[in-house]
Amino acid sequence: MNKNQALRAALESGKLFTAMAAHNPLAAKLAEEAGFDGIWGSGFELSASYAVPDASILSMSTHLDMMRAIASIVSVPLIADIDTGFGNAVNVHYVVPQYEAAGASAIVIEDKTFPKDTSLRADGRQELVRIEEFQGKVAAATDARRDKDFVVIARVEALIAGQGQDEAIRRGIAYEEAGADAILIHSKQKTPDEILAFVRAWPGHVPLVLVPTAYPQLTESDIAALGKVGVVIYGNHAIRAAVGAMRQVFAQIRRDGGIKTVDSQLPSVKEIIELQGDNAMRSIETGYLR
Amino acid sequence: MNKNQALRAALESGKLFTAMAAHNPLAAKLAEEAGFDGIWGSGFELSASYAVPDASILSMSTHLDMMRAIASIVSVPLIADIDTGFGNAVNVHYVVPQYEAAGASAIVIEDKTFPKDTSLRADGRQELVRIEEFQGKVAAATDARRDKDFVVIARVEALIAGQGQDEAIRRGIAYEEAGADAILIHSKQKTPDEILAFVRAWPGHVPLVLVPTAYPQLTESDIAALGKVGVVIYGNHAIRAAVGAMRQVFAQIRRDGGIKTVDSQLPSVKEIIELQGDNAMRSIETGYLR
Amino acid sequence: MNKNQALRAALESGKLFTAMAAHNPLAAKLAEEAGFDGIWGSGFELSASYAVPDASILSMSTHLDMMRAIASIVSVPLIADIDTGFGNAVNVHYVVPQYEAAGASAIVIEDKTFPKDTSLRADGRQELVRIEEFQGKVAAATDARRDKDFVVIARVEALIAGQGQDEAIRRGIAYEEAGADAILIHSKQKTPDEILAFVRAWPGHVPLVLVPTAYPQLTESDIAALGKVGVVIYGNHAIRAAVGAMRQVFAQIRRDGGIKTVDSQLPSVKEIIELQGDNAMRSIETGYLR
Amino acid sequence: MNKNQALRAALESGKLFTAMAAHNPLAAKLAEEAGFDGIWGSGFELSASYAVPDASILSMSTHLDMMRAIASIVSVPLIADIDTGFGNAVNVHYVVPQYEAAGASAIVIEDKTFPKDTSLRADGRQELVRIEEFQGKVAAATDARRDKDFVVIARVEALIAGQGQDEAIRRGIAYEEAGADAILIHSKQKTPDEILAFVRAWPGHVPLVLVPTAYPQLTESDIAALGKVGVVIYGNHAIRAAVGAMRQVFAQIRRDGGIKTVDSQLPSVKEIIELQGDNAMRSIETGYLR
Repeated sequence: MNKNQALRAALESGKLFTAMAAHNPLAAKLAEEAGFDGIWGSGFELSASYAVPDASILSMSTHLDMMRAIASIVSVPLIADIDTGFGNAVNVHYVVPQYEAAGASAIVIEDKTFPKDTSLRADGRQELVRIEEFQGKVAAATDARRDKDFVVIARVEALIAGQGQDEAIRRGIAYEEAGADAILIHSKQKTPDEILAFVRAWPGHVPLVLVPTAYPQLTESDIAALGKVGVVIYGNHAIRAAVGAMRQVFAQIRRDGGIKTVDSQLPSVKEIIELQGDNAMRSIETGYLR
Repeated sequence: MNKNQALRAALESGKLFTAMAAHNPLAAKLAEEAGFDGIWGSGFELSASYAVPDASILSMSTHLDMMRAIASIVSVPLIADIDTGFGNAVNVHYVVPQYEAAGASAIVIEDKTFPKDTSLRADGRQELVRIEEFQGKVAAATDARRDKDFVVIARVEALIAGQGQDEAIRRGIAYEEAGADAILIHSKQKTPDEILAFVRAWPGHVPLVLVPTAYPQLTESDIAALGKVGVVIYGNHAIRAAVGAMRQVFAQIRRDGGIKTVDSQLPSVKEIIELQGDNAMRSIETGYLR
Repeated sequence: MNKNQALRAALESGKLFTAMAAHNPLAAKLAEEAGFDGIWGSGFELSASYAVPDASILSMSTHLDMMRAIASIVSVPLIADIDTGFGNAVNVHYVVPQYEAAGASAIVIEDKTFPKDTSLRADGRQELVRIEEFQGKVAAATDARRDKDFVVIARVEALIAGQGQDEAIRRGIAYEEAGADAILIHSKQKTPDEILAFVRAWPGHVPLVLVPTAYPQLTESDIAALGKVGVVIYGNHAIRAAVGAMRQVFAQIRRDGGIKTVDSQLPSVKEIIELQGDNAMRSIETGYLR
Repeated sequence: MNKNQALRAALESGKLFTAMAAHNPLAAKLAEEAGFDGIWGSGFELSASYAVPDASILSMSTHLDMMRAIASIVSVPLIADIDTGFGNAVNVHYVVPQYEAAGASAIVIEDKTFPKDTSLRADGRQELVRIEEFQGKVAAATDARRDKDFVVIARVEALIAGQGQDEAIRRGIAYEEAGADAILIHSKQKTPDEILAFVRAWPGHVPLVLVPTAYPQLTESDIAALGKVGVVIYGNHAIRAAVGAMRQVFAQIRRDGGIKTVDSQLPSVKEIIELQGDNAMRSIETGYLR
């Protein structure tokens, strides 16, 4: 089974698939090593790693190149976050084969207007495109893919935009009808109630995708017990972990006027070199440097 | 004072300048916030973030683009690690103006053969180019810069290559004669003895640069007491901090089957959004979205 | 005078400035050698060279990188075509400093919706944004520039969109009020009548920019005689020349089953090598290869 | 048959395969339309289009990205020119899968030292690596490919370097033994004598590849009559055609002070728009814009 088939099979299995956000191939490799089933090619994390807002500021190329780099390092499926699809349905039609060629096994498109704003930002601009317009984007994505196992996930932002459950359900169903393989339903409420209500009410046939950033109390076993949910995405924990640690280590070094304290608390340089594929390079050197 | 002038002035001040490695603009921003005087645009860290060896595997563009992104975010000087200069002296002559235009305030070139190998790797290939050849590279770099305040640092790998103090001093002096503004002397011995011997013996007029990865016990006050040293570079502590934290957080999430435990231990999403320049974007929105 | 100052001075001189489209640095170099005063960093030509529609299909990075490459080769000012600004006014605010850092001396933003469609395409989508919205984009561009000599040109597509002279004038004036340094007025009518009427009626103080693709009969002396016009842009003649010649030469080679006929009709390999800066490289080699 | 299989089958067919150089997707599309069997992803042409020497000045990424763009546009096989492989055998091992993923069906590696110099440059640096070293590179390339139909072509520069027929034959045979699927033999003599002598003397089993830039009198039927030759590459005729035409058109516009004369001599804007895939975009618009 290749990666696309693996993700497709997972969606059909009824078993929950876990994906961890990554902002570079190293984070993705660590996520794979930790046992996550796949990687979330997060636009939020990538924007954060560039210290710019998650508001269509980074060029598509920057994200696409990072997806290619990540896919070349991990052996688990990569779900690429393509925001609103970088334009209209025409853009989506041109974009999807590029993500497929880059090694992603899925894309997620969201039904907000371009340029997007981060869903979790307080007072952000959260405008949705018309349902028919977004159906066109979903259809463009599914028709443009080369491999039928490549997964197209439609992201419903109706709850984020404050438009209520009925609108969210209506959109989810409309996107399924347009060909979406799964529906990502996003909420920024601080308890899972809103999401739980959506899941229970969901009348569709395709699996749901949850991103429990705002309601961390919902566990995988809770989610699995719901049925209907195929994928859980942890959308920003790699960059948050990295930020916390860098802040602390940097402050410690400044306090100490040097690295004598922090050095022994950090992974060694040797560990980093191993993560860089040192063993593979050694065997290439042995085999081909003459 | 612009950034180039700030770095030049620091080198002439006799006060120790501290630079922290960064593999992306976010790490650089955190380093600036922590109080480091500048950023080390590390090839090792960037390679590590791509999970590939630090052996001229990443394309120059990948490094140059990252330097541009970093320089656009921080207000402190960026010292770019250009390894061996991506070829011979001709390549250096073409490369230096590109790094200058990207916003770097200095480059470091090392006297190893291309493709390089990581200095700290056990049993790595550590071959040096001829002294005259490297003098040509240094001269090409200094002549190619557009702004005379842009700093060219020559990195001596003679100790790394096991060629001894005399060869290291000989090379340092030769590179100073060729126009280098500072000499980076690198050692992988686990105590500072080798480096201390070099510094004491250094007969040159330009300041030295140290990278105390292997001998973390040497503090900034120790280094400042030596005189002669203008810059200390912490070459890999950002990526090591990030790796340690991501590993731990990822493992915890897998153990817990969810994020309920880790969530409160991590910086909040709001903190990340602030690091992305949310305040600046809000004022742009207020000013120009009509 | 640097390039930005040169363009600014030309706009203030009342003398017509001529810019030729380029889709790569070589075309730009040939344009400079032929005597054009500047380069038009055309989105249409770049899209054409990638054989994709000029409809926001190429990533911003592809265009920005090409601008950087062009600016590094020519010594005349580069006017970058940034289409609709890659999003809203916020995007424009982030984008402009990047084009400035890339070496462009001006940008042109157009008042169409994103994603844009080629102005000259039959039956293309030609929708305009509200006047106030576009004023916000113009203000964002002028405020975001670092160098006050960097030129911001607002492109009025009202004639292209069939909205008539009054709307075109109204928009031009509104954009001047918002800070535009010049107004590009575009027409696809096959005679210059529409454009001439606009120029004569133009009540603004800033110079106009014309792109006489559709009405080639209008010469530079005609335009100069009008007064009011500061820049004439030849928007697609480099790529059209290249296409015509490649088609013919390729066909000839296939007819001949070889290159014996075409070889002597083409510029020699030596001429190409000279255009690549062979003399400069020889002097670098002589100076620095040791 | 996919593109890799098509090239592989052509090599095994005994029929001459013709490849035209392209420096962008548009040139490649025109070459395909003219009837060439494949595209030569020329480093010389790409460097020329950037107006920089063909001497490892452009970053690998620039070439790789262009290969990806070309492969996405044409349906004929693309043979990528990877110069010396961007380093040693280790680099080759990392590079080949990237070119494969970019959609190339073959790579050509040459046995010169890095950084390379243009083979056709007068008095260029033409230094060869040791035979064993280059065998390592060839073996690294063949082992690193994912698809066994991907073709690895070894380029012998012994004649260019003035080392004579015996050395050229010795190297060709050694590279075939190391796994090369074909041998490109290059000559800059102004008559085909040297090449003809090599072809006649060639004792190997794999087909040869010729690049008749310097000896244009040799036709495809002459080459086919020799047997042994599988591919003929026209290495620089796209850029030479483009340069000749742009020079002439630019000069004419400057002479005329306008485009009234040249306009009717050039392909129309409509023709360019068609080359950009306007029909395909129209059908995407019809299908998905709602």
